[in-house]
Amino acid sequence: MNPGDRVRVTRAGTTNEGVLLPSSTAEHLVVKLDGGYNVGISREESDVEILERGVYDIESAQDGDSVSEIEFDEDLPTISLISTGGTIASTVDYRTGAVTAQFDAEDVLRAVPDLAGRANYRGRVVANILSENMEPSIWQQLARAIHDEVEAGADGVVVMHGTDTMQFSAAALALMLDTPVPIVFTGSQRSADRPSSDNVMNAVCAVEAAKSDCAEVLVCMHASQSDTACALHLGTRVRKNHTSRRDAFETVGAKPLGEIDYETEAIEWRRSYTARDDRDLALAEELNENVELLKFTPGMNLDRYAGFLRESALDGLVVEGTGLGHVHTDLIPALGDLADDGTVVTMTSQCLEGRVCDRVYDTGRDLLDAGVVEAGDTLPGTAKVKLMWALANHENPRTAMGEDLVGELQERSVPWK
Amino acid sequence: MNPGDRVRVTRAGTTNEGVLLPSSTAEHLVVKLDGGYNVGISREESDVEILERGVYDIESAQDGDSVSEIEFDEDLPTISLISTGGTIASTVDYRTGAVTAQFDAEDVLRAVPDLAGRANYRGRVVANILSENMEPSIWQQLARAIHDEVEAGADGVVVMHGTDTMQFSAAALALMLDTPVPIVFTGSQRSADRPSSDNVMNAVCAVEAAKSDCAEVLVCMHASQSDTACALHLGTRVRKNHTSRRDAFETVGAKPLGEIDYETEAIEWRRSYTARDDRDLALAEELNENVELLKFTPGMNLDRYAGFLRESALDGLVVEGTGLGHVHTDLIPALGDLADDGTVVTMTSQCLEGRVCDRVYDTGRDLLDAGVVEAGDTLPGTAKVKLMWALANHENPRTAMGEDLVGELQERSVPWK
Repeated sequence: MNPGDRVRVTRAGTTNEGVLLPSSTAEHLVVKLDGGYNVGISREESDVEILERGVYDIESAQDGDSVSEIEFDEDLPTISLISTGGTIASTVDYRTGAVTAQFDAEDVLRAVPDLAGRANYRGRVVANILSENMEPSIWQQLARAIHDEVEAGADGVVVMHGTDTMQFSAAALALMLDTPVPIVFTGSQRSADRPSSDNVMNAVCAVEAAKSDCAEVLVCMHASQSDTACALHLGTRVRKNHTSRRDAFETVGAKPLGEIDYETEAIEWRRSYTARDDRDLALAEELNENVELLKFTPGMNLDRYAGFLRESALDGLVVEGTGLGHVHTDLIPALGDLADDGTVVTMTSQCLEGRVCDRVYDTGRDLLDAGVVEAGDTLPGTAKVKLMWALANHENPRTAMGEDLVGELQERSVPWK
Repeated sequence: MNPGDRVRVTRAGTTNEGVLLPSSTAEHLVVKLDGGYNVGISREESDVEILERGVYDIESAQDGDSVSEIEFDEDLPTISLISTGGTIASTVDYRTGAVTAQFDAEDVLRAVPDLAGRANYRGRVVANILSENMEPSIWQQLARAIHDEVEAGADGVVVMHGTDTMQFSAAALALMLDTPVPIVFTGSQRSADRPSSDNVMNAVCAVEAAKSDCAEVLVCMHASQSDTACALHLGTRVRKNHTSRRDAFETVGAKPLGEIDYETEAIEWRRSYTARDDRDLALAEELNENVELLKFTPGMNLDRYAGFLRESALDGLVVEGTGLGHVHTDLIPALGDLADDGTVVTMTSQCLEGRVCDRVYDTGRDLLDAGVVEAGDTLPGTAKVKLMWALANHENPRTAMGEDLVGELQERSVPWK
């Protein structure tokens, strides 16, 4: 079979009929259905029947280097859909009774017919993982993919991502990319086979946000338990605060940057942002992976951790301290030794809300004297990603941890209640 | 000088005049002021002038074995005030311009005249530390002190504690003690020298809660930013969620157990609790300290942590995973090896709200297969304290981590918004 052939593909009890398109992966067939949608189908265990050869002129049907589009319309913006896996790109694995990430961006288009007519789509698969398996090298692939998509003319990018580590990836991309267009992460807390699935509304709102004027790295997820609106969170200040609720994502220390009404598609912006085309596209993808996060809790074996830190020869350490940014007094010498040896040691708070201030109490001042730098109200996870990036890209990573680079450290934390 | 002498004590520019009482510590003088309050004054650098010898019959003034009381009244309950340090028991250190914990329970009485007339007080100093320096051995001292106070007839106990680690200590005490009376932790987010200090209202509300019918280990802190009410949180489900706000403490996954109105002293209970005298006093103070908490974040060096875990030969490990309770697939074998070697490995979520469920996704099921036990909606910090306690006291610590012992694991997590 060749691209342009009319085929009937049967897999797992489902039959699709249409024209075979070129596929960017060896694992998937891409079929343009008669209704105009493209679907991606795993080649594995697929039964393909060729109905007619060469019915379609592939060359004229393609626009750019992407195979994925739904009825190209010159009046619509072009949105690049990039899949990394996760629940939004998943379906039920009937073998195990649970959800696995096994699909790519093509499947999202099939799963969300509501996306049709909103944009021209380009599709790309960067990874196909559950997001707990996300790694810095994939952040770099993702950054390059987004960079290429924007360079190729995408008016906005939607990144399909598992929810577990979405906040880390969004923070990483916000640091790695200067973007002139919106980059919108979205995902799903409930898989598509569940009646309460949030995948359609999140995907639709993400596409609308990607068409907007806001050239920031955003996370677009349900704003409440109802299906009325999605919140648009700044990627560096968002956190998954609930294991299962659809409105699990919250902006910490501020209101969400915006909210998008599902029905009217109107976006209400609550804070300022960098507008579309106000900055040039740039990529700084290097990361220093020799960075760890240490959460302090009472009762931890301080000698054990002091030894661990000494042996690890880290370039960077993010401490998740208590309260205003404290650890046990007896751990401070180990942190001081690290700082003396050139490790950038930065303090965040496990409280999550509020900001670190080590000038108030003895242990805090001892930490500052030991060379620890305060990360203000930067979230601990974001601080870790930032330190990885700053060590590889910033002329003074230590100073950088006390300053705002891309919205991760606010001058003032706004009460959250 | 001897107890019963009338003295004038000058220290740090402050002069107090009254009758010397017996002191339970070598470091402090206790003076009954003419107004009826007792004050504790550090002997260090104190200038004591004896005004008149033997003016007061100490034997007849003492009730029980405690030296600390404000006008004993037979009609009032007896509340034991136990100090561990922290901001509520602190004052400004003018040498450094910052706050240090250097006072004991006596000073709290002086600092909070509003406590007078509400109860007869017994005072005890268990520690004098900033709470980031809290250690399991102090939890044990505290448990024994509370046990002794209740045994000696205290109708309720108030524990003055630094806010940084109050939730850990409250959880520890809830596990270590079966109590027939209320045990109420309280503290202060703003020191007494600041106009916005919360120490008076928190202390008064804590004493009122300690007089109540609720024989639970509670945390009593501001319910909102105003001075109208304190929330009463179950010690095993409370968390300091803000670095500096007075209403930083929140019950996670449920409403606070109760709320106490500052003006009327009325307590509104919102959930059921064990009533006063419904159980017998019992102490199980053993703790296994060979337990650590591991927070998983993307980009962590999995080999490094696998080595650390292997070498540490832990008896217990609490994993703070992502989402429903996940870690990177490549970390699972190391956790499985630990479980095979007899370490109790339990999973919590860094989302904090919601509950762990590892039956949904591949990595979760792999974790269960590896022998990891789900801690439901137990907070990660509480889970660590619980595992320390269960390993030393429970016949099946692994099973215990999946069950509720003292309110730390709810059958159903209630939405938090």
